[in-house]
Amino acid sequence: MRTWILWFRSHTVTALAPKDRRSEILERAARLICERGYGSTSIQDIAEACGLTKAGLYHHIRSKEQLLVEIMHYGMDRFEAQVLAEVEGIVDPVERLKACMRRNILLVTSGWSKEVTIILHEHNTLTGDLALQINQRKKRYVHFLESAITEAIALGRIRDINPTVAAFAFLGMVLWIYKWFRPDGALSEDVVAEQMVDVLFGGLLPLEGGRGR
Amino acid sequence: MRTWILWFRSHTVTALAPKDRRSEILERAARLICERGYGSTSIQDIAEACGLTKAGLYHHIRSKEQLLVEIMHYGMDRFEAQVLAEVEGIVDPVERLKACMRRNILLVTSGWSKEVTIILHEHNTLTGDLALQINQRKKRYVHFLESAITEAIALGRIRDINPTVAAFAFLGMVLWIYKWFRPDGALSEDVVAEQMVDVLFGGLLPLEGGRGR
Repeated sequence: MRTWILWFRSHTVTALAPKDRRSEILERAARLICERGYGSTSIQDIAEACGLTKAGLYHHIRSKEQLLVEIMHYGMDRFEAQVLAEVEGIVDPVERLKACMRRNILLVTSGWSKEVTIILHEHNTLTGDLALQINQRKKRYVHFLESAITEAIALGRIRDINPTVAAFAFLGMVLWIYKWFRPDGALSEDVVAEQMVDVLFGGLLPLEGGRGR
Repeated sequence: MRTWILWFRSHTVTALAPKDRRSEILERAARLICERGYGSTSIQDIAEACGLTKAGLYHHIRSKEQLLVEIMHYGMDRFEAQVLAEVEGIVDPVERLKACMRRNILLVTSGWSKEVTIILHEHNTLTGDLALQINQRKKRYVHFLESAITEAIALGRIRDINPTVAAFAFLGMVLWIYKWFRPDGALSEDVVAEQMVDVLFGGLLPLEGGRGR
């Protein structure tokens, strides 16, 4: 890790093969935006982090907003590969939802979630067509959850709850984690994942008696 | 509402009595920061929204960060008055938690929650002592939830779940709502509040059979 930081500090992206340059620029921009927020990160900051001049950076990217949307698409690609693609084939809708929740929590708690943090935090930053592109990918996830919940209700596997509220309860529990979880804290990511699944599906009230609505 | 908007656009804060000027500056700054994000809002933007020069604005405020912390303290004051103070006296810990969840959801869904949105969104923007001030107030809420949950577990009113995970499940469900709820959408704020309480306490699984962990 230390070696990698030293490498990171002493190398400009121009030392890389052309095909790696673009992803290295995205990586370094994501790091800055994640730490400071999009509004507080200038193109000049990003250029410096890449060891480039502003003109040199504009050779690789069209605009700061275009850079942000590319980072978000990369984050959505990772989410879809590591979460959605892995659970879509699970036949039972409750098991599909539980596996999805566990995997999404582990994606949020993992140290490699800069792009995911940016997607969550900069949800209102993009405008126009770029905002639409990312929002459509996010909505696909909400619809995936709503339809799994609707399917589970029809099978009697989940009780009669509004599927949209249930989907956003799921998302709130999972996605809020980026705000409070610390890898060096008292709770391991596995405990958080298992207990969150337990709370959402089992509820807080005891299994017998007192479970009033 | 329309009259108010017209008034807002045509008046500078200097037209107000001195004691109202400060709160009007906070109000207009909160509106801008809520819409654009803190990093994308300049002191110049805030001065213009108040009908002041930058020098004129600095007569009232020390810095942009000081303005942000005052907005957050105002939001925390409202939260504590409208949520915490109203439920702290409820003897039964489960009823206390349910009433707290309902009230906090209605605070987030209400149209007057600019300051609350800013607290939620700009959670990493403040630094040093100012960050500490706000974080201590937020932590007071987490501790309030954890101790109500611990008390309910001791009484057998909530099952044996990690109180920290349960507290952040509660907070995630409630506080994520600012990201997706629309006052003109299909779900009313009352339906969201009741169903969220139902999901957190009752869980998604049916009351009889199939409620496996």
